[in-house]
Formats: sequence, structure tokens, C-alpha cells
Amino acid sequence: MEVPKPKCLEKPLLVPSKLLMGPGPSNCPLRVYNAMKKPLLGHLHPEVLQIMDEIKEGLRYLFQTKADVVCCVSGTGHAGMEATIINLLEPNDIILVAQNGIWGERAAEMARRHGADVRVIEKPAGDVFSLEDVESALKEHNPAVLFMVQGESSTGALQPLEGVGSLCRRHGTILAADCVASLGGVPFFMDAWEIDVVYTGTQKVISAPPSLAPIAFSGRAMSKVRARKTPVRSFYFDIGWLANYWGCDGTPRKYHHTIPVSSVYALREALSLVCEEGLDSLWHRHHTCAQQLYQGLSALGLQCYIPDPVKRSPTVTTVTVPDGVDWMKVVRYFMSRYQVEISGGLGPTANKLWRIGLMGYNCTTENVDWVLRIMKEALENEKIKSNL
Amino acid sequence: MEVPKPKCLEKPLLVPSKLLMGPGPSNCPLRVYNAMKKPLLGHLHPEVLQIMDEIKEGLRYLFQTKADVVCCVSGTGHAGMEATIINLLEPNDIILVAQNGIWGERAAEMARRHGADVRVIEKPAGDVFSLEDVESALKEHNPAVLFMVQGESSTGALQPLEGVGSLCRRHGTILAADCVASLGGVPFFMDAWEIDVVYTGTQKVISAPPSLAPIAFSGRAMSKVRARKTPVRSFYFDIGWLANYWGCDGTPRKYHHTIPVSSVYALREALSLVCEEGLDSLWHRHHTCAQQLYQGLSALGLQCYIPDPVKRSPTVTTVTVPDGVDWMKVVRYFMSRYQVEISGGLGPTANKLWRIGLMGYNCTTENVDWVLRIMKEALENEKIKSNL
Repeated sequence: MEVPKPKCLEKPLLVPSKLLMGPGPSNCPLRVYNAMKKPLLGHLHPEVLQIMDEIKEGLRYLFQTKADVVCCVSGTGHAGMEATIINLLEPNDIILVAQNGIWGERAAEMARRHGADVRVIEKPAGDVFSLEDVESALKEHNPAVLFMVQGESSTGALQPLEGVGSLCRRHGTILAADCVASLGGVPFFMDAWEIDVVYTGTQKVISAPPSLAPIAFSGRAMSKVRARKTPVRSFYFDIGWLANYWGCDGTPRKYHHTIPVSSVYALREALSLVCEEGLDSLWHRHHTCAQQLYQGLSALGLQCYIPDPVKRSPTVTTVTVPDGVDWMKVVRYFMSRYQVEISGGLGPTANKLWRIGLMGYNCTTENVDWVLRIMKEALENEKIKSNL
Repeated sequence: MEVPKPKCLEKPLLVPSKLLMGPGPSNCPLRVYNAMKKPLLGHLHPEVLQIMDEIKEGLRYLFQTKADVVCCVSGTGHAGMEATIINLLEPNDIILVAQNGIWGERAAEMARRHGADVRVIEKPAGDVFSLEDVESALKEHNPAVLFMVQGESSTGALQPLEGVGSLCRRHGTILAADCVASLGGVPFFMDAWEIDVVYTGTQKVISAPPSLAPIAFSGRAMSKVRARKTPVRSFYFDIGWLANYWGCDGTPRKYHHTIPVSSVYALREALSLVCEEGLDSLWHRHHTCAQQLYQGLSALGLQCYIPDPVKRSPTVTTVTVPDGVDWMKVVRYFMSRYQVEISGGLGPTANKLWRIGLMGYNCTTENVDWVLRIMKEALENEKIKSNL
């Protein structure tokens, strides 16, 4: 052989156990891990199709929707974002992106690649858009699509979505919401709030491994897709094909692609746990743990990056790095001494803050206490000062 | 809640164990299943980046390449196909698709969606293209890209690729090869055969669950990508971003997307097993088991759909359904009585044949015997006759 066997694959696979208290992934419950070692089946076997049907029902509960088209894109959160944009937009369609962090930036970049006419309204990192902001931008730009991020994990901001949907309907605009870092942690009502497209990831509050992007299209969004003059510029992400594979269109299922079957098992179990607990309890748990975290941080003399608690997503808390402290040394202290992950900033917030995640399985009183205790210890440690 | 909790998720997840002797997925070794229940880590944790590096080395061995850009698309085989097309083609670029089954059809469809000028050369199902066929088509169409399928799993045909690369270089054409259903089961030498882009799936000969599409771009292919006048029309599939995330471009890794971490563990273990056995042995095992299958089928009075054994892929054997036999009843007999999967045709071969897979972990003498024994029993069973 011209290219010999690599030596590195002779070693055993060693994976340490860490507590993931960053902005995702979160750890998975044992039942979810165990699901993945169940025997692999074919992607069109009736047992797999039934599990997909069960996932659909779980997602309808999680999204609070009765929409027909509820399924998963076979990729991670970014694939959900790309599927949203690529299906909704035709060349030169106007998309208005509400940008207050990295996710709006990425959506705008994707839409530009797809040849859309991209208009951006901006807020500083940590701030959110009011209904007045949205309404005046809709009037100014008259967009085909408005893209908003519910939980902006780069800043910790929680965008209120109630009321945006009815503004969009009045302006003939399709409303797409990125709920990757928020769904399950805060109230969300796709139908009641008149949201047309929503997607999320599996590795955040749902507490399954990353691999699938749950997504839902309203009847209104599907009408826009069906009225396209140009074909959807992707076969893999084509919502018509996906909806058929997931049994959402009332016609016999055709072979579209091979779904990640083991990840489907894991998501089914994770959704089963979500339903067992119930959304009310899940939202309450995230709210309560976040309050506990805010109070504990304040007791340590730390400030949340977002002053107004109402604008904070309970799933990702951003904390301002105090003067004289090296943020990275603190992150390393958490990891090297306790195998606990917290993160630094991302995009507009890089080097300015820490991000502490409270998501799904990891969102517990005990974990909040644990993070606060390590933070206290780290801040008291002379070696983490930035000038040393 | 407007949408109540679904009852179906209250039941336990029950997954039967089946022997998957169709055209994929194949079953996974226990070591691969067990890898997926290892603790989830972050998508940029050093341990995960190291595992990704190990996968790259395993893939370089499997592809027989020293190319820099060797990585995975975070999706299944179709995602590898779409990434190939979307990165290589700009609007109005000419792509020549060698079409002799469903995979060529799908590549042509994807390329049309992406605005390419698609030219097709065709062979009947089961046949393959000669170097003369390729050369005259290159002369006629002068394509930017030639797309060929090594293992056409819808027909069982094995396309010889040796010599095609040098023809393409002479015509300034980039050669892309779909090796989803063949790689690991038959000789393949990316560098020696001068192949520019190759991709595969994880759920075939590699015997990991579906979730990732291993892919490699030659320096020549990357030059074409870098010389694009228009941006790649996808962020998720952008090979520049993927190459950076996978540490292939010599610059610090940036956050692109969240990789399916548990699937990465599984692929690493599956590649470790491939390397342990060695490609020579793996190819030999597939060849030997296929010969055993051909002889056994012949002894049962059955005919392979492809008359010339040299044109058959050992990974997917297509068998003509004899007159008077209902193909679907036989498939159901295998499954209902023995929980063994064999498949019917697909696309151009629907209703005409059976497809029996011999892939990776499932490619054993014992499994061939088992399939032949069930086939004999099924054909002797009066109830499977088509007129009953």
C-alpha cells in the first residue's frame, strides 16, 4: 500500500467524562446513551418509520404546533438554519435578518450565498428587538422572510417572539425563528405565536447528541415553498422530500436519504424524557436554576452581561469578566481541575465574558451550586489574575 | 398546553435485532455500538479534535491518498454527494454525469438544482463505461467535472476507475467518484488513479451507523474551489470551512458547526477495525464471499443480473427474479421468518431483482451460507409463487 495503516488507530478510544456547562452540547441521560447501542436497522424499516412518527409527535408537543410538516434535517443546528433559508428563499427574495449576535450573522451569510437580497437590522450584543423595531423594519424593507433568533447563545439574550408573528402576517412576511439554544428552556408556542418556520438542535435542552435538527414548517410556509418559481437549490435539505420521508404529506414514503438511525433512537428517548417531565416543569426548572445562578454570581461580586433579567435566556447566562481577571485562565481552571466546561464569548462577545449553560439534563440546582463553588475558588486563586 | 403530550412516547423503545444483508446499512460490531455511549464532549474539545485527526488518518488509508483535505461532511451519503457538487460547480459549469443507475440520476438532479449545465452519458442498468466511452464524451462535452459511481448499488455494477483520472487530467476535467456502496470492498486508489474528489458513507463497508460522509478533495480539486468566481452556495457544505474545522488547512480551527460527536466516536472505532484487518484482507474477504454467493445462487438455479462477474460489485449482488416468483414475498419471507434483510430493486431495477449486500462486518462465509439457505427454503415454499 502506498499509504500505510496509521499507528494512531491502534490505541484504544479513551473519552473522559466531563460536565458540560457551556452553551452546548449538554450531557445526555443514560437512557439516551443506551438507545444508541440498540441494533441498527434500515432507514425505511417499519420500526424506524414508527420511531420517526413518535419523534414527530414529541416535536409537535415541544414546538406546540399542529402543523403537518414537522421533521428533522439530518445534520446539526446549522443544517436546520440552512434548510430554512434554502427552502424559503428564491434568488433576489428579500430577507430581513434581526442581528444581535453570531446567529443572525450566520443566517445573513447563508442567505447571501443563496443569492437573496439580505437586509439587516442590528442591536448591540445583549440587546433584543421590540415590536416597534420589527414593525418599522417590516414597513421599510417589505421582506419575504424575517429571521429572528430566540436564544442568542453568543450573548445570552432572549428575544421575545410573541406579537412578531401577527406583525409578519399583516405584512405578508414569513417568520422564521432559530430556537437552537432556547427551545425547551423557555415558553415557545409555534401556532399561538404564528411562527412559520422553527428549528432547533438536539444537543441543547433536549439533551441528545448532536446529529439532527428538528424543524417545523407552517402551512403558510409550505405554501411559499410550493409557489416557488425556481427549484430548491438543495436535494438533501429539500423540505418537500424531507416531509415525504417523515410521513408528513399524506403520500407513500419514498427513499430520500439514509437517516442517522442511531441518532433517531437517541432523540426518541430524549423526547420521551421531555414529555415525561412536561414543558411546564421544564420551563420552570430552567427559570428557577437561572435565578439561583444569577443570585450566586451576584454574591461573588460578578455581573451578568445583560442588565435586565427579562432579556436573559435561562439556558445561556453571560457573565462579564471582571477587570484584572484572565477569562481563559478561569475556563481552564474549571476544566483542568474539575472537568467542568464553561465557555468564553463567541463572535461579538469574544474575550469579554463567560457563558454558562443550563440546559436540559444538566440544568439542576446541584450543578448550579457546583459551578458557583468552582467559580469562587477560581476567583480566589492568585494565579488566575490576568497580570500574572 | 394547546398541544398535549403524546401517549406514544410513554412506551419503551423496542428495537428488534435484524441481520442486514441488503445494500446498506450493515450491522455494526459491538465495539462501534459501545463507542456511541461514551460520554459526549464538546465539538471543539481537544479530545474530539484528536479523534477527528485519527479519523483523517484512517480515511487517508482507506482512500489511499496523501491529500490534505480529507474530512467528513456531517450528514449521510447524499450529503457527501451534494457537498461534492456544490463545491465543484459554479452556475453554468458543465458537469458530465456517467449515469447507469439511480446515483447518477441523483447527481444529475442535484447539479441541475445548483444551476449547472448537466450533460449525461448513459448505459443500461448493470452495464459500465469503458475508457473509450469516457474519452469520447470528454471530447464532446469538455466538462469541468466528470461524475462517476464506482459501486452502483441500484444495479450491482462496479465501474472500473483506473485510467479515467488520466483522461480527465488530459482534458482539464475534475474527476469526482461516488464510492458510497463500494469503498473498502474493492480496490480504490485515490492518488494512483488520479481521482480528484471521492466520498463514501459510514454505514456500508465501514460498518458504522449512518451519520457522516467521509470525503477527500485533491489539491487540484481545491484549486478549482479556490478559483471560484461565485461563493459556494452552502455554508454547511463549504469545503473550505470543513477543511479548516478538520485541521486540513494549516490554520487555527474556527467554529464552523457542531459535529455529531457520538457518531465521530463510532466512526473512529470502525476505522480502527478496518486498519486492524487491513485493506488487502478486507478486499479479499469481499471478493471471496461474493464468489461463494455467486456459486450458491447458481446452484439454486438463480442468475446474477449482471452476466459478467468482472462487472459486479462484490458489495451488492443483484439477482434476477425468476418467472413465476413474487420478489416481495421472498423479501418478506426472509424478514418475517428469520429477521434477515435482503432488498428488491431500486429506480431502474425496481421489481426486477433482489439485492443482496455483503458489506464489512456482515461479509462472512457464515452469512452467505445463511442467506443461501433461506433463499432455497423460500423458493421451495409454494406460497411465494407469484400467482398464489
